[in-house]
Amino acid sequence: MKTLGYYNGRYAEIDQMMIPMDDRACWFGDGVYDATYCRNYIIYSLDEHIDRFYNSAALLEITLSQSKEELKEILCDMVRKVDSPDQMVYWQATRGTAPRLHQFPEGTANIWIMLRPKQIGDTYRKIKLITAEDTRFLHCNIKTLNLIPSVMASQRAAIAGCDETVFHRGQRVTECAHSNLSILKDGVFYTAPSDNLILPGIARAHLILACKELGIPVSETPFTLADMIDADEIIVSSSGSLALAACEIDGKIVGGRDQQLLRKIQDFVLADFIARTGG
Amino acid sequence: MKTLGYYNGRYAEIDQMMIPMDDRACWFGDGVYDATYCRNYIIYSLDEHIDRFYNSAALLEITLSQSKEELKEILCDMVRKVDSPDQMVYWQATRGTAPRLHQFPEGTANIWIMLRPKQIGDTYRKIKLITAEDTRFLHCNIKTLNLIPSVMASQRAAIAGCDETVFHRGQRVTECAHSNLSILKDGVFYTAPSDNLILPGIARAHLILACKELGIPVSETPFTLADMIDADEIIVSSSGSLALAACEIDGKIVGGRDQQLLRKIQDFVLADFIARTGG
Repeated sequence: MKTLGYYNGRYAEIDQMMIPMDDRACWFGDGVYDATYCRNYIIYSLDEHIDRFYNSAALLEITLSQSKEELKEILCDMVRKVDSPDQMVYWQATRGTAPRLHQFPEGTANIWIMLRPKQIGDTYRKIKLITAEDTRFLHCNIKTLNLIPSVMASQRAAIAGCDETVFHRGQRVTECAHSNLSILKDGVFYTAPSDNLILPGIARAHLILACKELGIPVSETPFTLADMIDADEIIVSSSGSLALAACEIDGKIVGGRDQQLLRKIQDFVLADFIARTGG
Repeated sequence: MKTLGYYNGRYAEIDQMMIPMDDRACWFGDGVYDATYCRNYIIYSLDEHIDRFYNSAALLEITLSQSKEELKEILCDMVRKVDSPDQMVYWQATRGTAPRLHQFPEGTANIWIMLRPKQIGDTYRKIKLITAEDTRFLHCNIKTLNLIPSVMASQRAAIAGCDETVFHRGQRVTECAHSNLSILKDGVFYTAPSDNLILPGIARAHLILACKELGIPVSETPFTLADMIDADEIIVSSSGSLALAACEIDGKIVGGRDQQLLRKIQDFVLADFIARTGG
C-alpha cells in the first residue's frame, strides 16, 4: 500500500477511508493522538510515544480497550503493510461514536492510525521563526485534537515564509505551534519546565538526555523572549526533525554563537535516532 | 427520515453517514459550527445564527463556497425531509479535506448538517450548577469544534447531578460550558460583555432585547463569583432552553429572590420563540 488509514480494525489507503459522522472527533475534536517516525520499518521510541499517548488519554478519561502491548503490536503490524521503510506513524483515540452530546458516551475509544511515506527532516537545516502570543487552552501538556490555535499559527508562519511560530504568554516563551523550543546560553541548555503550558516533547526529552551524556548543564527553567533573542543558539525540537537551529526570529538574525556545542547535540540525537531504527 | 446527516450534498440517516478520514475535523477539530431549533419546520432565528456562523468562519479564515442565502436554502430544504416538525438544527464547516498538515489546504470548506427530532427544553425548569476555573483558549467568541474543555466540564456537571458548569477566570464569571450566564440584581440585568472570553449567544442577545422591551436596565459588565452567588436570579441561556433559572450552585441555594421579574423575561423570550416559529 502507498499509505495506510486504519479505523477500529478496518484499513485502506487513507484517501479511501471513511469515518462515522458521529465519531466524537467530528463534533468536539474529542480525542488524543501521538506520532513518531519509522525507519527500516522500525518505529522510533515507540514505548515513549505509547506511554505519552496513554497518559494523554487518561488525562481526558478516554478509555482504551487495547493494552499498550496490543496497540504497539497493531502499529508494528500496520507499518509493514506500507511500501516504504520510512514513514510518519500517527495514531489517535477518539471518545467513541454516539449522537452529539457533550457528556461522555458509554463504551471505549475508536482507534485511528495514519501511515504515510516520509523521512525525518534534515536536522542541520537552519530555520526561521515568528512569534505570537500563546492564546491556547491551559492543557497543552495533553496531545489533543483541539489544534485550531496551532493551525492558525502554522499558517501565519507559512505566510511569513517561516518554519514555525514561537508562542509566548506575556514575556515567557512556552513552545512552538508543533515543536518545543530550547536555548543554549553560556554553555547551558535551558528548556521550559514540563508543566501544563507545554507538551512534554519526546525529542525534547532526548535533547535533555543528550546534554546529560555530553556533560552540558541542563536547566528546566522558564525563559523570556529577550532571553531567546539573546541566546547563543535556539533549538526547535520535534520527532519530525529532532533538533533544528533557528537563524532568524521575526526577521532578526539570531543564534549561531555556539555552533560547536549545537553540532555536538545534533550529532548525538541524530546518531541515537539512527541507532534505534536499525543503524 | 428519522434523522438527517448531510455532507457536501450527500445525505442519509446520521448513523449511516460516513466522512473522509482526511476531513480537517478529524485531525485538528478545524471547523466552526452553529445550531438552533426548528418548530413547525421553521428554523428559529436562522439569520442571526447564519450571521454568527459566517463570522466564526471568517475569524478562522475558513472559506465557504456557499452564500448565506444558499446555505439557508439548503437548511430549510433539509429540515423538510425529517419526520418531525421539531428538530435540533446543527451545521458546521470544516477546512476542507487534505493530507494532515497544519497549514491551510487549498479549496473551500466541507459543509455538514445534522438534524434530529428535538423540542426546546422547559424554560421554567430550575437547574443546578457547579463552578470550575475557565481553562479554555482565548477565542471563546468563535464557535469552533475545539470543545474538549466544554466536554470535560459537562461531564463533571453530570457526575455531580447538575445541569451545567459555570466557568470563571479567577473571580470573573465568563459563561457556562455550553450556555451564557447572566444575573438579575436589584432589578438590573447584568451579563458579561461580548469579548473573546464568551460566545456572543443568540439567546443572550434575545434576553437583552427582552429586557429593553420590558424596561429592565441592562449592564454588559463583568461580574464575579460572589456577585453571582449574591444575585437575585441567575439565568442560563442557550438556544436549547432560552432562559433557565438556577436554584443551586456548588450545593448552595441561590436565586429565587426576584421571581416576578424572572418570569416576565422568560415569558417574553418564550413568546418570541413561539411567534417566530409559526405561532
